[in-house]
Amino acid sequence: ALAAPAIAQSNPKITWRLTSSFPKSLDTIYGGADDVVKHVAAATDGNFTIQPFAAGEIVPGLQALDAVTNSTVEMAHTCSYYFVGKDPTFAIGSAIPFGLNARLTNAWFYQGNGNTLMNEFFAKHNVYGLLAGNTGAQMGGWFRKEINTVDDFKGVKMRIAGIAGRVLEKLGAVPQQIAGGDIYPALEKGTIDAAEWIGPYDDYKLGFYKVAKYYYYPAFWEGGLAIHSLVNLEKWNSLPKAYQAALTDACAYANVNMMAKYDLKNPTAIKQIVSQGTTLRPFSQDILEACYNASLEVYKEISATNADFKKIYEDQVAFKKEGYLWMQLSEYTFDTFMMIQQRNGKL
Amino acid sequence: ALAAPAIAQSNPKITWRLTSSFPKSLDTIYGGADDVVKHVAAATDGNFTIQPFAAGEIVPGLQALDAVTNSTVEMAHTCSYYFVGKDPTFAIGSAIPFGLNARLTNAWFYQGNGNTLMNEFFAKHNVYGLLAGNTGAQMGGWFRKEINTVDDFKGVKMRIAGIAGRVLEKLGAVPQQIAGGDIYPALEKGTIDAAEWIGPYDDYKLGFYKVAKYYYYPAFWEGGLAIHSLVNLEKWNSLPKAYQAALTDACAYANVNMMAKYDLKNPTAIKQIVSQGTTLRPFSQDILEACYNASLEVYKEISATNADFKKIYEDQVAFKKEGYLWMQLSEYTFDTFMMIQQRNGKL
Repeated sequence: ALAAPAIAQSNPKITWRLTSSFPKSLDTIYGGADDVVKHVAAATDGNFTIQPFAAGEIVPGLQALDAVTNSTVEMAHTCSYYFVGKDPTFAIGSAIPFGLNARLTNAWFYQGNGNTLMNEFFAKHNVYGLLAGNTGAQMGGWFRKEINTVDDFKGVKMRIAGIAGRVLEKLGAVPQQIAGGDIYPALEKGTIDAAEWIGPYDDYKLGFYKVAKYYYYPAFWEGGLAIHSLVNLEKWNSLPKAYQAALTDACAYANVNMMAKYDLKNPTAIKQIVSQGTTLRPFSQDILEACYNASLEVYKEISATNADFKKIYEDQVAFKKEGYLWMQLSEYTFDTFMMIQQRNGKL
Repeated sequence: ALAAPAIAQSNPKITWRLTSSFPKSLDTIYGGADDVVKHVAAATDGNFTIQPFAAGEIVPGLQALDAVTNSTVEMAHTCSYYFVGKDPTFAIGSAIPFGLNARLTNAWFYQGNGNTLMNEFFAKHNVYGLLAGNTGAQMGGWFRKEINTVDDFKGVKMRIAGIAGRVLEKLGAVPQQIAGGDIYPALEKGTIDAAEWIGPYDDYKLGFYKVAKYYYYPAFWEGGLAIHSLVNLEKWNSLPKAYQAALTDACAYANVNMMAKYDLKNPTAIKQIVSQGTTLRPFSQDILEACYNASLEVYKEISATNADFKKIYEDQVAFKKEGYLWMQLSEYTFDTFMMIQQRNGKL
């Protein structure tokens, strides 16, 4: 048989579908998928086309992993911690309480063992993961009453999922799993007392400031939420190398661009929120300490029965110790000075 | 005439040369160019090849801009502030005293007006710029004597260039321009009293800890040094769109990956440096205040006669005010807590 011309082989027409776990209305986090598909199309001259679908258009947001594992779609744009029900190890792929900030998340994935370890784990679920977004440290959520002491968490019904929910449960809170669109009415009716979502820009859109007065920070459970492109493993392996490279780099672009979007949009939103009468409050050091200790207990419990979690968690902790050693010197000192100038109106 | 087949048009063989402003021994900052060329080659199936050259192989590091402007090479991997001698506006492209940290640098370039404004300016020098690396906040440099008060800067001969040099001059220091490789002997002989270079990993390689005892932080003049790919404007415009896209995304990958490398390598290096007997010292608040005020004077002086600088500087300041409003809330509070745990050996 005649060999096909080499140039044709290297540019096959490929069309994929991507399911996002987010609604289109969240232009920041959903926008990451838009970046990925547009940049892949551009770099491949339109030969590798990925069609993005919002949560619910093909499968619900929380079924994104199954849809990729089972080849319903070729890839998803999602947070791996949505899938802690299958295995808590998925949480480490996005954010765990008192984990890494956004910059150290990138450092662990790109240069530490993050990408290797998480992809060894993802492979068990037939997917390959690429970082494709970050929200930065999120806000600690909306509360209808003040949380001044650790005891104030007792009995608080809070919309918070996954490992963070288990942590707050140890303090007496009652974690609730509620889809994004159902949070507002639940808070309004008092079915729940508190809810965490993302940060100022996304939270303002959902109007939480109308139904809860106190907006706490930080989300100690999301110091830097990583968003992933999860690709069906066989589909990934069958891609031409050039398309793998284009997709890898498109995801890197989406990763840094999403963080940039949040940093552009959150300042305006936090001012809008405060102008509506919201009270901003930091969690007290006592509360953070109690939550930190509760988190260590949860990690010990999970590690006792889950070898994947234990291995990857311990690697990330070792990285974190080193990372925060360096970050507290130069950058933190610089930032602290700049923030003082900012507060004094001197920037 | 016969039209060429479309598929051949879209994948022309293109070979470029890239001149880096850095030596190969600095695998972190030189490594950014390696990332760019490897990722471009991978995404274009080897059809768009960029050959990287270290500083001095084609032109000296500080002539990288001229080499691109004049088409001696198609592109450079460099810091635009090396070219403040041509126009101080170049400084804003990489870092200016009390400017932006690494994350806000990305935010300003990708989502603020940074890319648009700097490229309007770069175009006057016949180049197109793409972010392709960041060092994060650098260290404030090596000093043979303690700098406890503002007066201690008087008469200090310090290797520091550009706008930062002008700032320290206002405090009585004597800025010196010395190439990287010449810093060590100058410090050793006492020809200079102090020198700033980059941060722990790169500084340790050059052995400065052997000839200066005090290592200060932060480099208030480099809260997050951006490294650029600067591409000859006609060469950029003549690239097929797909190659422009591949190069854009390869630079985004290099950008995030360089920061990750520094965050991986700096912690080990700072411990090695301290183990050699180096004393780490923060600049006092008084010193930072004095340098801040001196910086504002310098910006006023430059802005009085340079419309490009004034316009871009003012845009960045407006962005900075907003950025540091948001960053001081959630992320800073999270980081502060984590750093306390780190210092207490509890991470």
